[in-house]
Amino acid sequence: MFSLSPARLKSYLPILDWGRSYGRAELSGDLIAAIIVTIMLIPQSLAYALLAGLPAQVGLYASILPLVFYALFGTSRALAVGPVAVVSLMTASALAPLGLDNLVDYTAAAAVLALLSGLVLLGMGLLRLGVVANFLSHPVIAGFITASGILIAASQAKHILGIKAGGHTLPELLIAIVEQLPNVNIPTLIIGVIALAFLFWVRKGLAKVLKNQFGMSAKAASTTARVGPVFAVIGTTVAAWALDLPGAGVAVVGAVPTGLPPLGLPSIDWGLISSLVVPAVLISIIGYVESVSVAQTLAAKRKQRIEPNQELIALGASNISSGLSGGYPVTGGFARSVVNFDAGAETPAAGAFTAVGLLLAALLLTPLLYFLPKATLAATIIVAVLSLVDLSILTRAWGYSKADFAAVLTTILLTLGVGVEVGVAAGVLVSLALFVWKTSRPHVAEVGQVPGSQHFRNIKRHQVVTDPHIVTLRIDESLYFANARRMEDLILGRVYRNKDEIKHVILMCSAVNEVDLSALESLEAINHRLADLGMTLHLSEVKGPVMDRLKTSHFLDELTGQVFLSQYDAFIALVKEVREGEASASAA
Amino acid sequence: MFSLSPARLKSYLPILDWGRSYGRAELSGDLIAAIIVTIMLIPQSLAYALLAGLPAQVGLYASILPLVFYALFGTSRALAVGPVAVVSLMTASALAPLGLDNLVDYTAAAAVLALLSGLVLLGMGLLRLGVVANFLSHPVIAGFITASGILIAASQAKHILGIKAGGHTLPELLIAIVEQLPNVNIPTLIIGVIALAFLFWVRKGLAKVLKNQFGMSAKAASTTARVGPVFAVIGTTVAAWALDLPGAGVAVVGAVPTGLPPLGLPSIDWGLISSLVVPAVLISIIGYVESVSVAQTLAAKRKQRIEPNQELIALGASNISSGLSGGYPVTGGFARSVVNFDAGAETPAAGAFTAVGLLLAALLLTPLLYFLPKATLAATIIVAVLSLVDLSILTRAWGYSKADFAAVLTTILLTLGVGVEVGVAAGVLVSLALFVWKTSRPHVAEVGQVPGSQHFRNIKRHQVVTDPHIVTLRIDESLYFANARRMEDLILGRVYRNKDEIKHVILMCSAVNEVDLSALESLEAINHRLADLGMTLHLSEVKGPVMDRLKTSHFLDELTGQVFLSQYDAFIALVKEVREGEASASAA
Repeated sequence: MFSLSPARLKSYLPILDWGRSYGRAELSGDLIAAIIVTIMLIPQSLAYALLAGLPAQVGLYASILPLVFYALFGTSRALAVGPVAVVSLMTASALAPLGLDNLVDYTAAAAVLALLSGLVLLGMGLLRLGVVANFLSHPVIAGFITASGILIAASQAKHILGIKAGGHTLPELLIAIVEQLPNVNIPTLIIGVIALAFLFWVRKGLAKVLKNQFGMSAKAASTTARVGPVFAVIGTTVAAWALDLPGAGVAVVGAVPTGLPPLGLPSIDWGLISSLVVPAVLISIIGYVESVSVAQTLAAKRKQRIEPNQELIALGASNISSGLSGGYPVTGGFARSVVNFDAGAETPAAGAFTAVGLLLAALLLTPLLYFLPKATLAATIIVAVLSLVDLSILTRAWGYSKADFAAVLTTILLTLGVGVEVGVAAGVLVSLALFVWKTSRPHVAEVGQVPGSQHFRNIKRHQVVTDPHIVTLRIDESLYFANARRMEDLILGRVYRNKDEIKHVILMCSAVNEVDLSALESLEAINHRLADLGMTLHLSEVKGPVMDRLKTSHFLDELTGQVFLSQYDAFIALVKEVREGEASASAA
Repeated sequence: MFSLSPARLKSYLPILDWGRSYGRAELSGDLIAAIIVTIMLIPQSLAYALLAGLPAQVGLYASILPLVFYALFGTSRALAVGPVAVVSLMTASALAPLGLDNLVDYTAAAAVLALLSGLVLLGMGLLRLGVVANFLSHPVIAGFITASGILIAASQAKHILGIKAGGHTLPELLIAIVEQLPNVNIPTLIIGVIALAFLFWVRKGLAKVLKNQFGMSAKAASTTARVGPVFAVIGTTVAAWALDLPGAGVAVVGAVPTGLPPLGLPSIDWGLISSLVVPAVLISIIGYVESVSVAQTLAAKRKQRIEPNQELIALGASNISSGLSGGYPVTGGFARSVVNFDAGAETPAAGAFTAVGLLLAALLLTPLLYFLPKATLAATIIVAVLSLVDLSILTRAWGYSKADFAAVLTTILLTLGVGVEVGVAAGVLVSLALFVWKTSRPHVAEVGQVPGSQHFRNIKRHQVVTDPHIVTLRIDESLYFANARRMEDLILGRVYRNKDEIKHVILMCSAVNEVDLSALESLEAINHRLADLGMTLHLSEVKGPVMDRLKTSHFLDELTGQVFLSQYDAFIALVKEVREGEASASAA
């Protein structure tokens, strides 16, 4: 499996592919994109570290090596990996139960979490288990992202208000905030509200100004507007320094160590590892799903392709490098990847150049962050995550399918009310349980011939031709243990209603994709019961794989009737048989 | 829901139905059956109580009121309820973790378990949740019964050998027996082996003797042979008394209190109740499945019908009455019901008469049981349960479907190696997980027209007509979140292979029983991607319920092609369109 032929090597190291044709055009596109993304990522990285409960510089560390490793192994040309909102929230939620009061221990645990998450992703990639992510349905993902956005915004409100309010669920957070309202720090609130207002304007209005007043193209304007938050950082930092806001109770980032990220294996504590395994798996899967969907969206725009299992390997390598360089779990982020793409990134080298930019920031800029108000970072987070909140998934799901609605509602309520891990796990389980429940209560249609065609449809929905001596039931589900007995009852119940007239029962199997051993026994029982009633059982349109399996059993020998290739063949043959029977009966 | 119209009342109290036409013929049939079943049940009830770890008389108590209550509420004319092997084993396994050394407390806990199980069954019946039992597949039930039989036989070996050997899993039991082999009690072993040999002969050879030498009919002979075990009881009891076997170390039943079962509510201990709830649910479901399958088999022979939800109510009432009269969990047993049926039971009154017989036994016979060797009871159990052991389910499942094999193997290994509750739960979960896994990796066939018909089949299995500009893919599964992305990849992968030729893609939906919101988004994505490649997407043979749902979305407005009633219509129309397109292209 792991023999390294050149083709195989290239599939594991996509850089060998795009690297060979790298030229001046790619270089200039990548460099410009890298500069813009670097400026955008500095405040974002600091802010998400704060959200994860980590020192601000950890956000920078987590944005350097992971970008380089993704550039080596990733198959997306535009994806930018690093700290993102939802994974930061999940990191905070995974570390909270450990009760680590010491920030050094907490930071070390975050690095261990990144390492574990990287190993999980790498393992899934090598075992080609990317399909596991398919069990997260779109509504569950949408509900989870929306609920996470609400939870993140609520968790940041305390920084805007200048109060202390803990909690990991929405009710806890809201109660803590309300209790602490009398202690609001007014200077912090002013800084926070100004930052919020500025950032909202940057997001909604700046691009328009750049376009209309500075004559930028729509795309250039919206890309340039992405660096807007850096001005909020500069402005409020200068204000805090000039007005001595820390003296007025405004929380600031404070002293941040300057220098390279600390390289090395986090200390191995098996108790810590065992309590972080489950969160690491969840973070891996959620991070992977988020990252791959961003990568696929961008690849489709340039008609490129993403290799999902190779993406797992790339994200695994990124997270391992994050864990080994004092970072925390990372994944491909939506906003930064779109900016990277729109700014003209041609290859993953853009990510490597961004890494260099952030490394310079970590080396040179950190002393300047001393006076950066935490309220500014909180405002950055709130503005970013509110765009994730989209409750319309509730109405869309309600309108389309109640099962999807139940799954999304469960996910949202449990994520908000109990926690992110419980929320997403419950969403998956509810989706699966409802799917199984539906397949255990299948639709069965009695069908007849659409006049003038060889096609058979539901007698309740279409004008069709039937024969009183022949009943055809189309079974709209695979036959398996959960519905086998029900199907038995249903079929026998139907034929009992006209038991003196019916001579032939046809089961139209065009929708039967599988017949398991329990269902086989039910089919045998149906065959015997119908024989007792003087009726013959036939099958029509049995699919190849199902027929192959039936042939390994004795059922086809015991079947009182025949297996017809098409329902039309069955109907014609049996109508003829019934007519001939009647003719010979009246002749006798 | 619970308004009591006469019809409703009759459905809850089937006795109002059969009781009105009760006459002399029914009475004599019922009486004869009751006498035979009573004689058969005395040793069996005592033995199963021993298996459950309970005093012997509890087995009698559990056979009296439950029979009466089943007669009132049950819909089967022949089912006989009482202690059965598998439920007795499950009772022992539920009570073992409680660590109750005191036999009085242990017996009281068994009554609480019966009461809880009765409430669970009654609740399921009133809520019409009988379908829950359908999630136990035939292979899982077969594997569970077989493994239980092996476990029960192993647990009784110690009584035959006259040793003490605890344990609740097969490895534990075998190790304990091997360790205790030096302490085997020879008189016990002799009694045990003689009883075993006699009982095997009764089962295999007695009926033949009765038929050939006494001129009985085959049915009468096999029914009479069922009372054979009572002679083993009488013979070994007399031998134990006459030879003073207890003095030689042979364990006997000892003093059994004479009199009526103790009536009354067991003392309510919430801690006890909460630790018995899960076992009570499992015992209820297993007992119900066993009972209903016996009842259905017998009902079918006389063309009668069983009402599954009313059976839940009847079994619930039986178990509640067992719990209130010093018994333990009961259900409909296979052997006793067959005997009851073959001996001529016409109505549930036979069960009530049997109850009177067992009541007399409890009042009068118990002093005579003092010298009954436990080895005899163990031999009764072993002979009874070995008929449950049928490992052929493993080969049948292997030959038919590897998924069924995996489920049955898991059930057997975990039941033997870990315990009955874990075994059955794991069997259900493995079955469901494999079903979901299979539906997440569906079969997709490229189809063409079967010449001379309007029928379309797999191009790999049939000689069919196709067109190079039209690809038809038949999707053999409902489209839902677990397979939506895979389907996207599969369809796009197929069309990329001939992307210059293909103009139309038809998805034949005859096997698509559902399209959930995730799959709808995938269909939209497929539609857009195909449009980018210059191809048109069509659907054919979409079922009514699926079409209803698609109409609530915007998908049909965005669809680049059409929805055709039949695949034939689609193929004809698109071939015509392609030909016309070619003609106008060459004309231009």
